[in-house]
Amino acid sequence: MSGRILVIDDVETNRVILRTKLASQYYSVLLAESGYHGLDLATREEPDVILLDVVMPDIDGFEVCRRLKADPCLAHIPVVMITALNSPEERLRGLEVGADDFLSRPLCDLALFARVRNLMRSKLMFDELRLRDRTCGGSGPGTTLAEGDALIASGGSSVLFVSDPPEEAQDWATRMGRRLGIRTMSCDAGQTALNIVREAPPDAIVISQQVRDGVDGRQLLAALRSHPDTRQSAILFAVQGEDFALAAQVLDLGASDYFHTPPDPAELAARLRAQLRRKLISDGLRSTLRDGLRLAMVDPLTGLFNRRYALHHLERIVARARATGRGFATMMLDLDSFKSVNDRYGHPAGDAVLRQFADRLRETVRGEDLVARLGGEEFFVAMPDVDARIAAQVAERMRVAVESAPFVVDGVPEGLSVTVSIGVSVGHHPEPLEVAELINRADAALYASKHGGRNMVTVVANAA
Amino acid sequence: MSGRILVIDDVETNRVILRTKLASQYYSVLLAESGYHGLDLATREEPDVILLDVVMPDIDGFEVCRRLKADPCLAHIPVVMITALNSPEERLRGLEVGADDFLSRPLCDLALFARVRNLMRSKLMFDELRLRDRTCGGSGPGTTLAEGDALIASGGSSVLFVSDPPEEAQDWATRMGRRLGIRTMSCDAGQTALNIVREAPPDAIVISQQVRDGVDGRQLLAALRSHPDTRQSAILFAVQGEDFALAAQVLDLGASDYFHTPPDPAELAARLRAQLRRKLISDGLRSTLRDGLRLAMVDPLTGLFNRRYALHHLERIVARARATGRGFATMMLDLDSFKSVNDRYGHPAGDAVLRQFADRLRETVRGEDLVARLGGEEFFVAMPDVDARIAAQVAERMRVAVESAPFVVDGVPEGLSVTVSIGVSVGHHPEPLEVAELINRADAALYASKHGGRNMVTVVANAA
Repeated sequence: MSGRILVIDDVETNRVILRTKLASQYYSVLLAESGYHGLDLATREEPDVILLDVVMPDIDGFEVCRRLKADPCLAHIPVVMITALNSPEERLRGLEVGADDFLSRPLCDLALFARVRNLMRSKLMFDELRLRDRTCGGSGPGTTLAEGDALIASGGSSVLFVSDPPEEAQDWATRMGRRLGIRTMSCDAGQTALNIVREAPPDAIVISQQVRDGVDGRQLLAALRSHPDTRQSAILFAVQGEDFALAAQVLDLGASDYFHTPPDPAELAARLRAQLRRKLISDGLRSTLRDGLRLAMVDPLTGLFNRRYALHHLERIVARARATGRGFATMMLDLDSFKSVNDRYGHPAGDAVLRQFADRLRETVRGEDLVARLGGEEFFVAMPDVDARIAAQVAERMRVAVESAPFVVDGVPEGLSVTVSIGVSVGHHPEPLEVAELINRADAALYASKHGGRNMVTVVANAA
Repeated sequence: MSGRILVIDDVETNRVILRTKLASQYYSVLLAESGYHGLDLATREEPDVILLDVVMPDIDGFEVCRRLKADPCLAHIPVVMITALNSPEERLRGLEVGADDFLSRPLCDLALFARVRNLMRSKLMFDELRLRDRTCGGSGPGTTLAEGDALIASGGSSVLFVSDPPEEAQDWATRMGRRLGIRTMSCDAGQTALNIVREAPPDAIVISQQVRDGVDGRQLLAALRSHPDTRQSAILFAVQGEDFALAAQVLDLGASDYFHTPPDPAELAARLRAQLRRKLISDGLRSTLRDGLRLAMVDPLTGLFNRRYALHHLERIVARARATGRGFATMMLDLDSFKSVNDRYGHPAGDAVLRQFADRLRETVRGEDLVARLGGEEFFVAMPDVDARIAAQVAERMRVAVESAPFVVDGVPEGLSVTVSIGVSVGHHPEPLEVAELINRADAALYASKHGGRNMVTVVANAA
């Protein structure tokens, strides 16, 4: 997948070399010749990935990275720091200010491209979750590094370590648990790991190249990425020595990050923290979207779908009926004399009746039927793939389910007797099917039930 | 990225060959030996990609694909049909029952793997949008082939064709416009294409390998994929002759599909329809999520953030203040004697006052401040990075903005005089900052303003 990469480097030769390398892979490249220029371009262009030199005359790469990661609008952009002096201290410092990786010159193309592909992919997935558009709408400002760390500090993250020999996994688990204040587990076999994650998927999994049972760590990585439960877990891969080809391969297989063994504990902790941060932020976005989706679709009192979703879904049932040529039914349901319940027993009693009515409705319909509360005491049911006879039977069953047993209300020991009037409209191809017309017809049938004395079902069917 | 692939083929040798090829790339492979077995496994396992043989004894691949694409729970899984007899008629039939591609035996590994990578990527992005989890929650059932086609038929899709010579692009545009009932544009130069999409991004773009200005079609493809406006457009790439290496490359660069030139118009139409279908379904999911997000965050009357979002956001402001050590203010605002507005002039007048008050608040604060309606006539403002002096100034400016001009209400020519009481709490590090405590303090300050005679500001600051 292509994307836009911002290169920040004060040395022209370095910029030209990187531009050439990246353009050969068809990336769009933006160039900045100083730290401040880079920050400015990042703000204006919002690139997908930033490649950042360490030593620059105005502000150095560490400071640029720190500022990027403190800005809620830019903190989500992945940063790879590039340096000639690859000391462990420098690498650690880069990771701690929020860099996603630290590469040293001369750059290994394989490692660079695999890293960029990997970061580009996670950036695109993250952008989908943020739902950002050109008007800067979506889920509001992003999460800064400090806020991400506060999420980890608030506790509850869990990490699984898998390695053969098991002592190695245990050693890593103990050290990281202590450094990061996280819950850890360890095991030595791929199958054990798969069983553990199936029970309770951890936030992150650290996999060694060597796993017991003759399983290659890559197979475990691929199996974890393929499994719905761990698709969104962070996965770090331990690469023995300086094997860049393996590192590139595990990134392409979906590893979130890799490190060389034996690991520097401080570096492993920094990498693990970065991945946990990202995982917690993504989880938060997903849960916000899921909450929003529920609010957009569901009536809070009864848990049934709301009017808005019902009408939208009805459009789909109509489109499907057009395609399949099969019939379907729409029903309008209205509780009889409901106002008197509210007036005599108060709103809490009315709410209890509405909730119980919703439960009885749910028990009467099939999984593929749509049940919604349109508002007040008015409900709606859409049933795909039924004819007039079946629709009439189901409606009658609903009517009886309401009439047959009193509704339980606090302070009314004998319960309340409630009845419902129902209007059913059955349509099928090739007559013109329009949502508004369907609802009008069901409404007219409901009106007939009300005027026929309530507590009854009226069915209107069109001969095709 | 790894994933789970279901291979449906009645010939054991074929299954074994495919399993070996796919396992070498670390995919998890599921095998089915008949059409019915395949449908059953697809339902139970929900794989990421399905590779489907055409000729099978029980039901053939076309029928399996048709059933998959008619099932709302399975229709989103990409299907690649594989055959020994690659006739244009057969390929077209496969595309028309909803297959994403049609490959012929002996399989070219390059083409197969690039296609699987490409489909895996779009499947993962789509899964993020669907927000599906293990409990089958998320955005409800998926969209079947027939429903997708109904979306296209309802009109409004636009497609841009880019090719040199321009006659070729015009020819494709005319034919496809007629076949699919879509709006079309055409041009011959990459720069013109970029200008066109910047004005109004089309739903799909068809790019020829040859584009004017010495631009390689791949560069245009990469530029379009890099641009936020066209990142989500469908892009089809025209590959001259049987160049599988180029086809694999454009799929990896992010093309949604490719076709060989000169194209069979029926096949191009089928491929374009498939891509438009997918684009419209994704757009629909995005728009549902965006609506949900808005509903979850915003008070519908005033357009301000709601209580729920305000409290969530306040947690973030507190976390950020902990990290930066800078101060911040929270304010509670309550309109004075608001009940009398509703009682004397009715609820519509009250709503008009609340909306105008929200507008005046918005005009007084900075972009980074949070303004929310907590409910009724109670509002909330959080201001990061301010001290007590500035917070007091801003609150006073709000008070004056309300008092200084009457509120416009229908039927009250002189307008209504309204005042507001404000309580401000200013906190800064290193005192313990808890959201509940901050709100209690601002509430106490508001109480003091109310008891001090209303229409006033009270500031509570803690010495650090």
